[in-house]
Amino acid sequence: MANTAEETKVNNQIIENLFNKCEASIKAFDNLIEKAKNLTKKKIVKDGSIDNALLEKEQFLCHGFSWLASYNFALREILNWAKNLEKNKKSFDLEKLILQSAFGEYLSQIIGGISMCQTEIIRAGDFGLTDEDINAFLIDEVKGLIKYGNTNDVRMQIAKHIVDNNYGNVGLEDETLEMIKDQFKKFSEDQVLPYAHEWHLKDELIPMEIIKQMADLGVFGLTIPEEFGGLGMKKIAMCVVTEELSRGYIGIGSIGTRAEIAAELIKLGGRDEQKKKWLPKIASGEILPTAVFSEPNTGSDLGSLKTRAVKEGNVYKITGNKTWITHGARTDIMTMMVRTNPNEKGYKGLSIILAEKPRGTDKEPFPAKGMSGSEIEVLGYRGMKEYEIAFDNFETKSENLLGSEEGKGFKQLMETVESARIQTAARAI
Amino acid sequence: MANTAEETKVNNQIIENLFNKCEASIKAFDNLIEKAKNLTKKKIVKDGSIDNALLEKEQFLCHGFSWLASYNFALREILNWAKNLEKNKKSFDLEKLILQSAFGEYLSQIIGGISMCQTEIIRAGDFGLTDEDINAFLIDEVKGLIKYGNTNDVRMQIAKHIVDNNYGNVGLEDETLEMIKDQFKKFSEDQVLPYAHEWHLKDELIPMEIIKQMADLGVFGLTIPEEFGGLGMKKIAMCVVTEELSRGYIGIGSIGTRAEIAAELIKLGGRDEQKKKWLPKIASGEILPTAVFSEPNTGSDLGSLKTRAVKEGNVYKITGNKTWITHGARTDIMTMMVRTNPNEKGYKGLSIILAEKPRGTDKEPFPAKGMSGSEIEVLGYRGMKEYEIAFDNFETKSENLLGSEEGKGFKQLMETVESARIQTAARAI
Repeated sequence: MANTAEETKVNNQIIENLFNKCEASIKAFDNLIEKAKNLTKKKIVKDGSIDNALLEKEQFLCHGFSWLASYNFALREILNWAKNLEKNKKSFDLEKLILQSAFGEYLSQIIGGISMCQTEIIRAGDFGLTDEDINAFLIDEVKGLIKYGNTNDVRMQIAKHIVDNNYGNVGLEDETLEMIKDQFKKFSEDQVLPYAHEWHLKDELIPMEIIKQMADLGVFGLTIPEEFGGLGMKKIAMCVVTEELSRGYIGIGSIGTRAEIAAELIKLGGRDEQKKKWLPKIASGEILPTAVFSEPNTGSDLGSLKTRAVKEGNVYKITGNKTWITHGARTDIMTMMVRTNPNEKGYKGLSIILAEKPRGTDKEPFPAKGMSGSEIEVLGYRGMKEYEIAFDNFETKSENLLGSEEGKGFKQLMETVESARIQTAARAI
Repeated sequence: MANTAEETKVNNQIIENLFNKCEASIKAFDNLIEKAKNLTKKKIVKDGSIDNALLEKEQFLCHGFSWLASYNFALREILNWAKNLEKNKKSFDLEKLILQSAFGEYLSQIIGGISMCQTEIIRAGDFGLTDEDINAFLIDEVKGLIKYGNTNDVRMQIAKHIVDNNYGNVGLEDETLEMIKDQFKKFSEDQVLPYAHEWHLKDELIPMEIIKQMADLGVFGLTIPEEFGGLGMKKIAMCVVTEELSRGYIGIGSIGTRAEIAAELIKLGGRDEQKKKWLPKIASGEILPTAVFSEPNTGSDLGSLKTRAVKEGNVYKITGNKTWITHGARTDIMTMMVRTNPNEKGYKGLSIILAEKPRGTDKEPFPAKGMSGSEIEVLGYRGMKEYEIAFDNFETKSENLLGSEEGKGFKQLMETVESARIQTAARAI
């Protein structure tokens, strides 16, 4: 007899035979996504490759497809997480409720619409999927998860666990990571939590002693290869560390991002001598980096940056205004995005320069020649301070160009930001 | 032959026979909502009336039902708007596109889920509606509107009209309202727009000459009955005026809210002599009112207000802190929410007092005895200034209690805020 949605068995809110149902749903989702992919392709591919004008025209659809693909990936991973817990005999009720709630919600949205933002909802019909396609997706397992997976009662049950301080098992299943987690949890509780609110109220920089301790714990070299003085760990270690540090204070959890951005830029785009020169110092915390990208009026639309770098002999002379520079004063090296080719208005005229500068103090935040700035006072996200910085023929050695060629800055940064985005997301946990 | 969704005819994105399809859809929606209402009732009604504990338990559902009911009402009204335009031979393509887009979107959400906030989505299944109920709702007209009403192409076509500065016909269909609209449009363009940005940059109060002109135009007495010196117009006039004023400057569009709140409070809850005393002066702009409700740490959770008013002889002595008081200094009367009964911690211990005060100046913002305060600087929404105000045995006559009984403050305010909410919404247009 067919296992229809009406017959899905639920025991104390938990769907029976849950893993199998999730697995079958993912297969149905795979089929649906294959169809959506082909339909989307038809609208943007010309002569065998993606056409930029069509991509521009169909950005709503393509944006929607990327959401669909992310949902697919997310459901697959959350199922893997739950299965791993079970394999290690650690699966409990709460984790099952979280699993079925995620499936119930996402499967419902695939049918009912995915809110990409408050005003843009992508629906199956937008891809050109037919009723037949939808019905093929709506197998009994999918229907059952939609109906019973994420009811109000299920969410209430999850809430009850949380009230009991049970947030579920993260399932790292890795002894080293568990150790790191414990170590940073302790650091956060002992060294950060008792003082963080005072730092916030006084709007102070995070004390150097704390940054020194973080450096000793390896925060700044976590993902830097061992040959360059780092710990050579994976991004997941960075996430674990960031979560624990952010639990103490958002500024503490976030200071590592600057090292992560600089190190990734150099690791992926730098010349060998640049790697040898900078990575060990970043890893040890001897030098603190700051990211100097945004400009007034451009926000993060980096393609339209105006700050100019003109090469004269063996120096670049840099002129322009940068803003929202986090930890802009008490740092030693700036990863600067500048325009080296003024004839190329778009992103192709941009380069990244690893510009050294003397570390600023409270009294003299910008002691370098050709560099001045002022603090932007902020309500939250304190501890590193934000600055607006003006460069007026600020000089840096031409050998500080990242890589060996001008015009690669945008591409170098794009390869890197993904890592910073992951770190940023981890701060929110 | 049945008019199925596949057969819905579309001409240049516009659905043919649109009004009939919308009407049939509303009927189907009415039936669905009746079912949802009965299902919701079953969960919250005990012994024939709504049970507070059940209402609390089922707030997700009840919140969801109110969304559903609002969608129903909104679709009905937008159809009426379009029909009126046609009756007056004013219906154009853009308006039809807006109509079908609204139906397409809302009907889709009824089936697919309504995002009540970024983390709460209510779906048909949450009400306990069955597949049969949904199928009964999904008549061909509904299917057609869902499929063709709000496609990306439809939205693109709407966007093209906007690019041509065609925002559609508001369809007031009322000569007086049209005249008022034109008058305030002209005022906004001549007296507000040329100066507003400077007021903003200098963070200045809106000049008194402008407020005087607004008063002469009747802004502050729009909805006050004629017998009390107002124009006795409906809320829609207030919306028209607010839209035009807000087009010039948000502060200008918003200053009327304070008069609206005070006048509504007095009109609905005041004693006859209070109406006679205050309404004409508010209508003429002779006195400017300010709303003194919020307190630090309570936000707009008025039920937990702490500011105390103690009656001694023929005065109330008021002590406590209020915050985010808009236009708190340059005003003459405060509609104050205070706790007159300290033994009643909830909303039942609250009263509203119409407390007179001398108008403040830049140099001396709070010249009254027992009253001090400081400005809260804000980034936007300037022109009236925000204040934190401390009351320390501030005295006001006991006859200034709104109405004739203590303990009615919360109820009086609730009757009134709806009007202020409408005015606030109109500012956003």
